[in-house]
Amino acid sequence: MLHFMGLVYITRKEHFNAAHRLFRPELSDEENLEVFGKCSNPKWHGHNYTLLVTVKGEVNKKTGFVANLKELSNVINDRIISKMDHRNVNLEVDFMEGKLASTENMAIAIWKELESEVKKMNATLHCIRLEETEKNSVEYYGE
Amino acid sequence: MLHFMGLVYITRKEHFNAAHRLFRPELSDEENLEVFGKCSNPKWHGHNYTLLVTVKGEVNKKTGFVANLKELSNVINDRIISKMDHRNVNLEVDFMEGKLASTENMAIAIWKELESEVKKMNATLHCIRLEETEKNSVEYYGE
Amino acid sequence: MLHFMGLVYITRKEHFNAAHRLFRPELSDEENLEVFGKCSNPKWHGHNYTLLVTVKGEVNKKTGFVANLKELSNVINDRIISKMDHRNVNLEVDFMEGKLASTENMAIAIWKELESEVKKMNATLHCIRLEETEKNSVEYYGE
Amino acid sequence: MLHFMGLVYITRKEHFNAAHRLFRPELSDEENLEVFGKCSNPKWHGHNYTLLVTVKGEVNKKTGFVANLKELSNVINDRIISKMDHRNVNLEVDFMEGKLASTENMAIAIWKELESEVKKMNATLHCIRLEETEKNSVEYYGE
Amino acid sequence: MLHFMGLVYITRKEHFNAAHRLFRPELSDEENLEVFGKCSNPKWHGHNYTLLVTVKGEVNKKTGFVANLKELSNVINDRIISKMDHRNVNLEVDFMEGKLASTENMAIAIWKELESEVKKMNATLHCIRLEETEKNSVEYYGE
Amino acid sequence: MLHFMGLVYITRKEHFNAAHRLFRPELSDEENLEVFGKCSNPKWHGHNYTLLVTVKGEVNKKTGFVANLKELSNVINDRIISKMDHRNVNLEVDFMEGKLASTENMAIAIWKELESEVKKMNATLHCIRLEETEKNSVEYYGE
Repeated sequence: MLHFMGLVYITRKEHFNAAHRLFRPELSDEENLEVFGKCSNPKWHGHNYTLLVTVKGEVNKKTGFVANLKELSNVINDRIISKMDHRNVNLEVDFMEGKLASTENMAIAIWKELESEVKKMNATLHCIRLEETEKNSVEYYGE
Repeated sequence: MLHFMGLVYITRKEHFNAAHRLFRPELSDEENLEVFGKCSNPKWHGHNYTLLVTVKGEVNKKTGFVANLKELSNVINDRIISKMDHRNVNLEVDFMEGKLASTENMAIAIWKELESEVKKMNATLHCIRLEETEKNSVEYYGE
Repeated sequence: MLHFMGLVYITRKEHFNAAHRLFRPELSDEENLEVFGKCSNPKWHGHNYTLLVTVKGEVNKKTGFVANLKELSNVINDRIISKMDHRNVNLEVDFMEGKLASTENMAIAIWKELESEVKKMNATLHCIRLEETEKNSVEYYGE
Repeated sequence: MLHFMGLVYITRKEHFNAAHRLFRPELSDEENLEVFGKCSNPKWHGHNYTLLVTVKGEVNKKTGFVANLKELSNVINDRIISKMDHRNVNLEVDFMEGKLASTENMAIAIWKELESEVKKMNATLHCIRLEETEKNSVEYYGE
Repeated sequence: MLHFMGLVYITRKEHFNAAHRLFRPELSDEENLEVFGKCSNPKWHGHNYTLLVTVKGEVNKKTGFVANLKELSNVINDRIISKMDHRNVNLEVDFMEGKLASTENMAIAIWKELESEVKKMNATLHCIRLEETEKNSVEYYGE
Repeated sequence: MLHFMGLVYITRKEHFNAAHRLFRPELSDEENLEVFGKCSNPKWHGHNYTLLVTVKGEVNKKTGFVANLKELSNVINDRIISKMDHRNVNLEVDFMEGKLASTENMAIAIWKELESEVKKMNATLHCIRLEETEKNSVEYYGE
């Protein structure tokens, strides 16, 4: 077969539904309310998070793939979704322990969980995009 | 101005983000897990709920409206969103007290909260649609 | 070929972008502002309208169709989109002349334009759904 | 727990990607082109189909559910998605054998596959909605 | 609390509905029609614009935020949405005065309005994305 | 008219529906199944592809455009959509001949078809984004 050379970016979208709360334990509920607004509600709230994982690499001659998206999906599910879906981000997710459960921190933490896994697939992690609501999203590129 | 007679249905979409848990207090965590699956996680999970409220009525000659959608939005926000957004459905929403926090029950409860309010606007509540995830939704027509 | 009997509803989605204003000419700008809010801005505003036309009928034995959706699309474009797209609903759309340019009235007017056209296709117009924004929509069933 | 009485409609959304072709075997390619347009391409084309299955019923006192959506999802996957996803609708789907592969016929066929399965869940199948493209969809209510 | 170092991009989405017209005043209506097509309609047309504002910065140790998205939303509403929503872009928006009301120019103008405001929040404006229709969008990065 | 200097990126979205199959002709069906999974189904499957073409350039003083999006749409339709829509990617698309029909390869091939066409419009092709499903997409930047 003919082969195209080229650096291509592929993205897989996954979902998880989780509870969380924004707060610093050293602050009172009133102080947390002032800093974090209604997101600090001590009785929790939650979101349908959308996670987009982008990896980049050369197109493989034998598959036409940068990476097998089914494999990538499996990795994301094993390492992230199975730990976060229908969970409490503050209380039950090992890689978020001791961190503020902001979308920014969640994106960085997910990057750290996936970076070496993607390397094993002979591709490079490029971007973690995490959408908390339709209006709010964050992106982290490992910088 | 010329006037169109006709029964028209108008829909307003609103959003709220909440934590909840599916469980019956008389069951153990293990029994709840068997009935409700991961939705029974004792440490909560959450969703971005999308709420669609449909009301019907004759088009008003002076406004061209069935009902003023801004007014309808205000009513939905006062009665529902302000009580559910960034809240725990099981612990903090008065009209869900003592009920299983399923999407079905939430839709019926929201209907009960809004029915008389919509009547005051000279329109009739037609449907409460509540979307829990992109894949799961319920509709209640007051029957 | 084998044939399925059954009443099926088919829907075609189209788009148009138009300017409009909500106002009654016998009122002052101030009075219109009170009734219609910012939608009465005398210098116009506009929307990307989404129009969904649903027709129903028995499945045709020779085509498997209730109606040819390409034909239905052509009819909608000839009768509605070509007259409303990139137009001013109040000033340039013949079938809205003399009417309040509310979404409700637009839906009823579009029904009147399409009803007999759909009949010619041996189907029955079932619903006109018009979405003005992501949050606001109306439906008219010809009642 | 307190219990709400009420008839509720619940909807589950699933996806499948399939190839198909609109044609009648007794016609020539030219005749099929005339009737079905580019959808009759003899070398096939395909779609990302979105399937929405709506069932209705009374809310169960012990679960707060009309039906367990995970169970409903499993049924849809067993009976429909596993047979249609990454398949050729004309050549490989048993319940479409000998029928024109129109969206209308597919919706009716899916209804026939699911009706008795939903009954076993103590609910009633209400609507099969099948979206072929963002612009074209059909609904079948078993009438 | 533990702290993640990292440059994160956060995006806030807002909406406004406006009328506009593409034309150069020194050209006749016919000439404008030739250059700008139906977008030059002298009686205006309009859109539901979607505005996405991306800012970047280090994650703040005390909040877990790059910037408070509620604050960012307030700034966007004060400086942009309140001036453009339900307005005529050509006639009523001070920062578009004397400019062609193309999506490209609107994006650049919005950048100029927001750049210093974002700096006050200790973040850096990264991208203005403006979507005019579902099919047409522009992005400006301040270059 | 006043003029804004600036490098702006504009994007046009188009759709096509096509059949394809992932396989290498030198492998048996069983071997292809092992490498490509259900995507290797010998009887084809298909997708609603979404194609996003981003071009960049300075804003033209006389039009306020980087490029006329209607012209860009025409070019995409002439060179890509008319050849791929309702076609079999493996068997009927000249610029995919002899190549594995992966989304990655399709994006690179589309880039090659459009690059010089965009240059004729005095703009620079920046990105080809091709979405195969709601969950899977690729981007190619010509590197």
